[in-house]
Amino acid sequence: MDIFNFYMPTRLFFGQGAVKKLARAKLPAGKGLIITGGTSTTRLGYVDKVAGALREGGHETIVYNKVQPNPTIEGVRECAALCRAEGCTFVAGLGGGSSIDTAKAVAIMATNEGDWWDYIHGGTGKGQRIKNDGLPLIAIPTTAGTGTEADPWTVVTNGEEKIGGGGDKCFPTISVVDPGFMMTVPPHLTAYQGFDALFHACEGYIATCASPVSEMFSLKAVELIAGALPEAVHNGGNADARADVALGSTLAGFVETLSSCTGEHAIEHALSAYHPALPHGAGLIMISEAYWKRFFASSGERLTALSRAMGKKDAAAPEDFIACLQSLRKACDVQTLRMSGYGIEPSDFGKIADNAQSTMGNLFRLDPRPLSREDIMEILAESYQ
Amino acid sequence: MDIFNFYMPTRLFFGQGAVKKLARAKLPAGKGLIITGGTSTTRLGYVDKVAGALREGGHETIVYNKVQPNPTIEGVRECAALCRAEGCTFVAGLGGGSSIDTAKAVAIMATNEGDWWDYIHGGTGKGQRIKNDGLPLIAIPTTAGTGTEADPWTVVTNGEEKIGGGGDKCFPTISVVDPGFMMTVPPHLTAYQGFDALFHACEGYIATCASPVSEMFSLKAVELIAGALPEAVHNGGNADARADVALGSTLAGFVETLSSCTGEHAIEHALSAYHPALPHGAGLIMISEAYWKRFFASSGERLTALSRAMGKKDAAAPEDFIACLQSLRKACDVQTLRMSGYGIEPSDFGKIADNAQSTMGNLFRLDPRPLSREDIMEILAESYQ
Repeated sequence: MDIFNFYMPTRLFFGQGAVKKLARAKLPAGKGLIITGGTSTTRLGYVDKVAGALREGGHETIVYNKVQPNPTIEGVRECAALCRAEGCTFVAGLGGGSSIDTAKAVAIMATNEGDWWDYIHGGTGKGQRIKNDGLPLIAIPTTAGTGTEADPWTVVTNGEEKIGGGGDKCFPTISVVDPGFMMTVPPHLTAYQGFDALFHACEGYIATCASPVSEMFSLKAVELIAGALPEAVHNGGNADARADVALGSTLAGFVETLSSCTGEHAIEHALSAYHPALPHGAGLIMISEAYWKRFFASSGERLTALSRAMGKKDAAAPEDFIACLQSLRKACDVQTLRMSGYGIEPSDFGKIADNAQSTMGNLFRLDPRPLSREDIMEILAESYQ
Repeated sequence: MDIFNFYMPTRLFFGQGAVKKLARAKLPAGKGLIITGGTSTTRLGYVDKVAGALREGGHETIVYNKVQPNPTIEGVRECAALCRAEGCTFVAGLGGGSSIDTAKAVAIMATNEGDWWDYIHGGTGKGQRIKNDGLPLIAIPTTAGTGTEADPWTVVTNGEEKIGGGGDKCFPTISVVDPGFMMTVPPHLTAYQGFDALFHACEGYIATCASPVSEMFSLKAVELIAGALPEAVHNGGNADARADVALGSTLAGFVETLSSCTGEHAIEHALSAYHPALPHGAGLIMISEAYWKRFFASSGERLTALSRAMGKKDAAAPEDFIACLQSLRKACDVQTLRMSGYGIEPSDFGKIADNAQSTMGNLFRLDPRPLSREDIMEILAESYQ
């Protein structure tokens, strides 16, 4: 057993109605900044519920509600300027990964000099170390996919670079995972987000930096997601299914903290960096079979264990994992995704492979066997429809 | 799914040689106080290794090496006085639960007014709230049993009261679980400590406050401990077996944080409060069958799941759990423990039951069904040999 570590200092509340726990949260005196998207979190009353719980705890809040999907560095800068101008003492990211990751970056920019891109390692990021702790940060996901509520990572896009950043100072102080905030996510997005979480858990399970503790989180996350995602897709009002998928996604966030994503995520980030209309989870689904096949030899037993966690109790060979993925895609009605449907052309594959290697090349170093630029091109070509 | 929380902010390093990680630990400038027992940790060179790693990181240390098994409030006071007098800026508990729990109490007493017993809830404790964060605290277990490296609890004895105390401010800042520090623990103590950890995991699994996440930790801890404890007992030099038991014990510490011990621990604490020569784990083993039998009806499926985690893959009834316990006792050569061998008399049972209820009565409230004073008396009587 190699030396490994465990560090996930977020105080996490989980369960239907958990948002009420914010009323008793320990937060600095002063005004909070709720960071969210422009429509559903307001329309569905989630912003009011968060603001109400914080008000009960003695905190006024203001709202920044202009976060876009695939949040941009420009959006982060605008929100950080508001946070500084208003002298907010804590921030709350409410929404999908976009809102929470924006909140993570804003919390750091409120207490550190310079720009968020100074702290990005990869691409044109300046690779600097974050000096000061950020403002206290609350993460309240309204989707079950990113796991960002239990990890210290962000994904922000700068032009054609979509790069993960973060580190120990970017863990949320408090996360509230309230499956009641996820009940109205439409079926196809539920599926895409669920597969994203599934792949966090699976990639972390085969990553060369996996540990016995990250593996435990991976298998439990996979079991919960594979077991409940079809029901959450087809019957979004089923609170138990939503709760299982939400918990699976959060546990997969632990996996991102304790282990890591691998090359599959690097390739997809490059795909959706050039094609922002492509949902991240959909991109992962498209390339998954071609990606995972490449680890039959290096990671046979691990793929078999993942297959058992996905419900195939008699799994005996790595190929079973592909069958499990196909079966779950079908059960979630996402078996017909095509790259061509999002305007992706085979002639793009070269720049996509280059972008994957230059912006998130470190993830390829954690694959069980190294993937070359040629491998990446082949994965994209095999996945093309 | 009820609302539950996850909070375990300790930075944990695990693995053979992990003590070296202390050289790069972030600690306040100044002098550290290593708190340990009087013999083996010095003789085996562990004190030197800890001091050496800290010195490499720029920290001088002094040593308090008078911690006794079942640490007393007097010992805590003496060590806290030294810590204050020397102006130490952090403390490191090195040893079994006694040393680490003393360090936890000393870290708090260094930054808070009054006495440790002021912060004890139960018995003659004053039930006050700890105001200030303690000094940064490093926990370095040399036994695999208490799990205190991953929980915020302490057990300190005051006269005939042996009471758990602690809370959020008592989590170690950093824990180093180096199975290399456990290789020479004698067979019978390895067994007692391993069973203590096993029962932390099992009790937390049936406790009414268990959550899906604590359950995951319980089952993995039980699997690791039951799988490796006999080998660690009979062949203490087997590094893999030591590592599995150590990890199982640490994961069971998470269970103590995320769920709770139950009445079994309350009864044993009372037993060994009156009979300090009785090792805690031995006391648990003695009363375990009579205790667990009482939950066949309330917790049948949970006991069956625990049996499967203990290796009985075809477990189908709660009774299987008793068979698993018996089989593990035999495999670890601890099947012949007798209360009478430690001077315990049936005439003591009344005061033991009273002590259990008065000092740690809160644990009984987490049992799946309430145990009355009569139940406790019966458990003791059935366990008597």
